[in-house]
Amino acid sequence: MGDPAGIAPEITVGAWRALRESGPAFFVIADPATLPVHLPIHLIDHPSVTGFGHALPVLPLRLAAPALPGSPDFAHAPAIIESIRIATNLAHRHLARGMVTNPITKTTLTQSRIFHNGHTGFIAELLGVAGEEVMMLACPHLRVVPVTVHVALREAVAQLSTAAIVATAITTHESLIQDFGIKAPRLAIAGLNPHAGENGLMGREEIEIIEPAMAILRAGGVRVSGPHPPDTLFTPSARQNYDAAICMYHDQALIPLKTLDRDGGVNVTLGLPIVRTSPDHGTAFDIAGKNIANPASLISAIKLADQIATQRGSP
Amino acid sequence: MGDPAGIAPEITVGAWRALRESGPAFFVIADPATLPVHLPIHLIDHPSVTGFGHALPVLPLRLAAPALPGSPDFAHAPAIIESIRIATNLAHRHLARGMVTNPITKTTLTQSRIFHNGHTGFIAELLGVAGEEVMMLACPHLRVVPVTVHVALREAVAQLSTAAIVATAITTHESLIQDFGIKAPRLAIAGLNPHAGENGLMGREEIEIIEPAMAILRAGGVRVSGPHPPDTLFTPSARQNYDAAICMYHDQALIPLKTLDRDGGVNVTLGLPIVRTSPDHGTAFDIAGKNIANPASLISAIKLADQIATQRGSP
Repeated sequence: MGDPAGIAPEITVGAWRALRESGPAFFVIADPATLPVHLPIHLIDHPSVTGFGHALPVLPLRLAAPALPGSPDFAHAPAIIESIRIATNLAHRHLARGMVTNPITKTTLTQSRIFHNGHTGFIAELLGVAGEEVMMLACPHLRVVPVTVHVALREAVAQLSTAAIVATAITTHESLIQDFGIKAPRLAIAGLNPHAGENGLMGREEIEIIEPAMAILRAGGVRVSGPHPPDTLFTPSARQNYDAAICMYHDQALIPLKTLDRDGGVNVTLGLPIVRTSPDHGTAFDIAGKNIANPASLISAIKLADQIATQRGSP
Repeated sequence: MGDPAGIAPEITVGAWRALRESGPAFFVIADPATLPVHLPIHLIDHPSVTGFGHALPVLPLRLAAPALPGSPDFAHAPAIIESIRIATNLAHRHLARGMVTNPITKTTLTQSRIFHNGHTGFIAELLGVAGEEVMMLACPHLRVVPVTVHVALREAVAQLSTAAIVATAITTHESLIQDFGIKAPRLAIAGLNPHAGENGLMGREEIEIIEPAMAILRAGGVRVSGPHPPDTLFTPSARQNYDAAICMYHDQALIPLKTLDRDGGVNVTLGLPIVRTSPDHGTAFDIAGKNIANPASLISAIKLADQIATQRGSP
């Protein structure tokens, strides 16, 4: 569902139009009233993509108040949350091959304390693996995995730890094998500081936190290189040398990814027992309802979820 | 000169070969012994580019020890420093239209306490404008100006101040008019935190430090927008909306620039009474002497110095 006052309904329709012939097929959990009146839909009461080529399958979930594009409404929170619960549950019970989440916003949901760890944290809690979730952003040019995510930069620096880097890198390593079919993944570990600290001249986190993590990873058989100067890690030639870059904070990962590929980036959650992807943009209330939103990232998210499910051996 | 044990000699030769017919013409301050024996050179004893199409003009400055490519030597420090003094002085006296500095490394020069503020800081001190220098990185796609430069990320966050943002933005604004010929420059101000803090949910620097700076700048007639979420500030469409991005720390500026243009980026020092540019890469000791170094950034630096000198009305 995502936030029904954002661009979620229109990009869902855009994704169906783009994929109706080629697939992968999907169904949406949504209030049918948020979809265009002329759109062919097929109301379902259990997971099904039958007839996907002719109509968008909709598992209906009613909102408590009408959705006005561009006007987020706290009254939508219960249905948004329920849609996440349902999708998680269906994927976990193998009644869906995976889940793709449309964007939500903390602003609408902040009163719900269950979101204290964010969208992804909530899904991990539902699945009993809270704290094990790892965010990967992937586009055709690059895969990046930040060790810290939605915290102030000051906190990200303060929180950086050898244990967190090791855990993030191991989850990434395992996912590259399991989900992306890479037999011997190569991980590039970014430094934290300019020039990766230049031997401690500009910060000691590389020496005291990152290199010890790399030693542990190497001892465990994980192929790592670094710590790399962050500014030259994302050039075309540098990107040939790794399958994923482990980044020390949110923007170190997201700036290069979005600079390279604004529309096609996909957010993949690693470390879950289910397949979960999402577009790498937000609710975009400012353009909602104008039918100018680009469904490219959602389409990429659906395709990648399908590929990962296949890679995991899902029927 | 740059560090003569790095790639400086070979990229200087490469730049001469690329520019000998089209210009802009330049002379190099160097030890002739560091240049290839078969290279046509023209020894000069005062600034001159006469005969540039036929021979590289060299203002000779002897090293205290031979330069071995890939082997930095403290014995080179006095000549490296003297070359910077001479170039700064010639530019300041209008005997050169500007100076272009080849890469040096703190490792070779760290014993010289005059470099406590780095290469650029030393030049600013020579010119009596210490602390007023501002670093811009420019490529055909993007101009970025970091408010803090070569400090640990932890320090960059701690040092961020309204005064520093205002000073950096004003210097950038004036340079875009004076050096780049943009009549009403538009500056994009980046946030510090993920999503620019999301109204204080992830850090308060946007509210407490950056927005007050923007209010001061607007009151002073500087066109600013922001604080922008850092990860979406460098997409192709976002880049249409500003002439330069004011960035809060080194890698926020350099990651997108180098991701977009590894080889053609140029470092321009704003806030000096002279024109000064440099390539945006380092000494590259690891490939020095192999004749595989790419002179593209040095060539771009020479061209941009020439353009800025012309824009400033230099003959």
